[in-house]
Amino acid sequence: MKLARFENGGVPRLGVVDGDGIVPLDTIGIDHPDMIALIEGGQGALGEIAAALASGRGERLALADVHLLAPLRPRKFLGLGMNYRRHADEARALGIAVPDGQLWFNKQTTCVNGAYDDVVQGPTTKLDHEVELGVVIGHAAKSVAEGDAMAHVFGYLVVNDVSARDWQFQSPTITMGKSFDTHGPIGPWIVTADEIADPAALGIRCIVNGEIRQSSNTEQFIHSIGAQIAHLSAAFTLEPGDILATGTPEGVGAAQQPPRFLSPGDVVRCEIDGIGVIENRIVA
Amino acid sequence: MKLARFENGGVPRLGVVDGDGIVPLDTIGIDHPDMIALIEGGQGALGEIAAALASGRGERLALADVHLLAPLRPRKFLGLGMNYRRHADEARALGIAVPDGQLWFNKQTTCVNGAYDDVVQGPTTKLDHEVELGVVIGHAAKSVAEGDAMAHVFGYLVVNDVSARDWQFQSPTITMGKSFDTHGPIGPWIVTADEIADPAALGIRCIVNGEIRQSSNTEQFIHSIGAQIAHLSAAFTLEPGDILATGTPEGVGAAQQPPRFLSPGDVVRCEIDGIGVIENRIVA
Repeated sequence: MKLARFENGGVPRLGVVDGDGIVPLDTIGIDHPDMIALIEGGQGALGEIAAALASGRGERLALADVHLLAPLRPRKFLGLGMNYRRHADEARALGIAVPDGQLWFNKQTTCVNGAYDDVVQGPTTKLDHEVELGVVIGHAAKSVAEGDAMAHVFGYLVVNDVSARDWQFQSPTITMGKSFDTHGPIGPWIVTADEIADPAALGIRCIVNGEIRQSSNTEQFIHSIGAQIAHLSAAFTLEPGDILATGTPEGVGAAQQPPRFLSPGDVVRCEIDGIGVIENRIVA
Repeated sequence: MKLARFENGGVPRLGVVDGDGIVPLDTIGIDHPDMIALIEGGQGALGEIAAALASGRGERLALADVHLLAPLRPRKFLGLGMNYRRHADEARALGIAVPDGQLWFNKQTTCVNGAYDDVVQGPTTKLDHEVELGVVIGHAAKSVAEGDAMAHVFGYLVVNDVSARDWQFQSPTITMGKSFDTHGPIGPWIVTADEIADPAALGIRCIVNGEIRQSSNTEQFIHSIGAQIAHLSAAFTLEPGDILATGTPEGVGAAQQPPRFLSPGDVVRCEIDGIGVIENRIVA
């Protein structure tokens, strides 16, 4: 199931994507105040939606006629550095230390942006793209063993972990350069976990102005999604709707010779097989 | 004004502290769904409370009869490393690099804990205390100049930035060791900004089992609160209720020779002049 948040000339609504259409949940008699509430409803909420859809009730709007919004604003938006083998190699070549363990940082949740909305450059001269698989947490996870972790995944989405490299490297904590307002496009929807047979076998690409810049596969992960959830939840509780951005593959602009940063007018397209596409224009 | 969140055998309520008593806002005809909504109400909301109190309406409960809760769960809980001159010196002596600029990290907001509630040690053998002045943001701040920044401060509270040093130093981003569940006691209430003539002249102390371990004054700040808000808001929007933990003074356990970490049974008291006291017991 593909769950989206959208508006078509009014307040934000939730909907289920069906091919090139979207069925608003409020037209099939299902009412959640927001996506996090739906996620908290778990399999019961999904079953209710599936049953209502099967009954043939509801309106069907053309996707092209609605404005997709970020599916949610999570309570935590965590990012993992250096999680693709070849990206770690390119970082080492730049003289960046690659730790043995998992390197987690925060994207401040104010940075969340829609799948097709503009990314505002902000006060950086080193704006860069990072396509990533985003994991959306389902039921809360605390002290979860790696083998049990995947049961806590609600679904997946595409993340562009937009990065201001000058601000990122001002401090070893890196969060300032990961968190500019609008620098967290996510979406275009949440694909529920049942639709992704193997999240560690997905083609993932970033395309800038039509040119492929990053192209890899999540089989390159150093730390599996299960290992990520086990590690984080050993320290603190992951909550419904929390987003884990699971790292970016090689090909970021900072690693090019010479570096190639983004400028106003550039269009950045991020796509993951089986999930979807987000595309954002850079504006001044 | 001292604004608290409490419960006395029921749902969480908001109240105004008055000496050794507390006046529940719902008994003076004022209803905000939570502290963030009150903060978003700004000076208007505070004026309404002051007028209602002046009218003599409302119940008055003994503070001793209620359980103070964390005043709020912020959308962002940010911490500043190395912001007291002598603490920076003690860190350098441990071989920790002290950056020139501001070093911000996240405490995951799930770590928020009440002023008198237990701190659960969790899977660390290097549990440490850090008393800090917490700044609570009032109206939203984006690209705010240092000279205008203090107008965005709603009030202050005491923070114990409890730290698991082993986890903290596993990664340069440090957030894992700052974010264990219960490791963010805050309170005991929010003192509104009008009550603190100079937040850069406050005595600040941490006392473990009756022994003073940290004792300093916020005049030791390297980066002023105004400079902090200017720096953060240059990158992203600070929102009502966001908490900035402004750094800890010298005297943390990790810097003792030999180090002195916290253990179950220890009682950690953090106090700041003009704001109040929080006191938490460590439990296994």
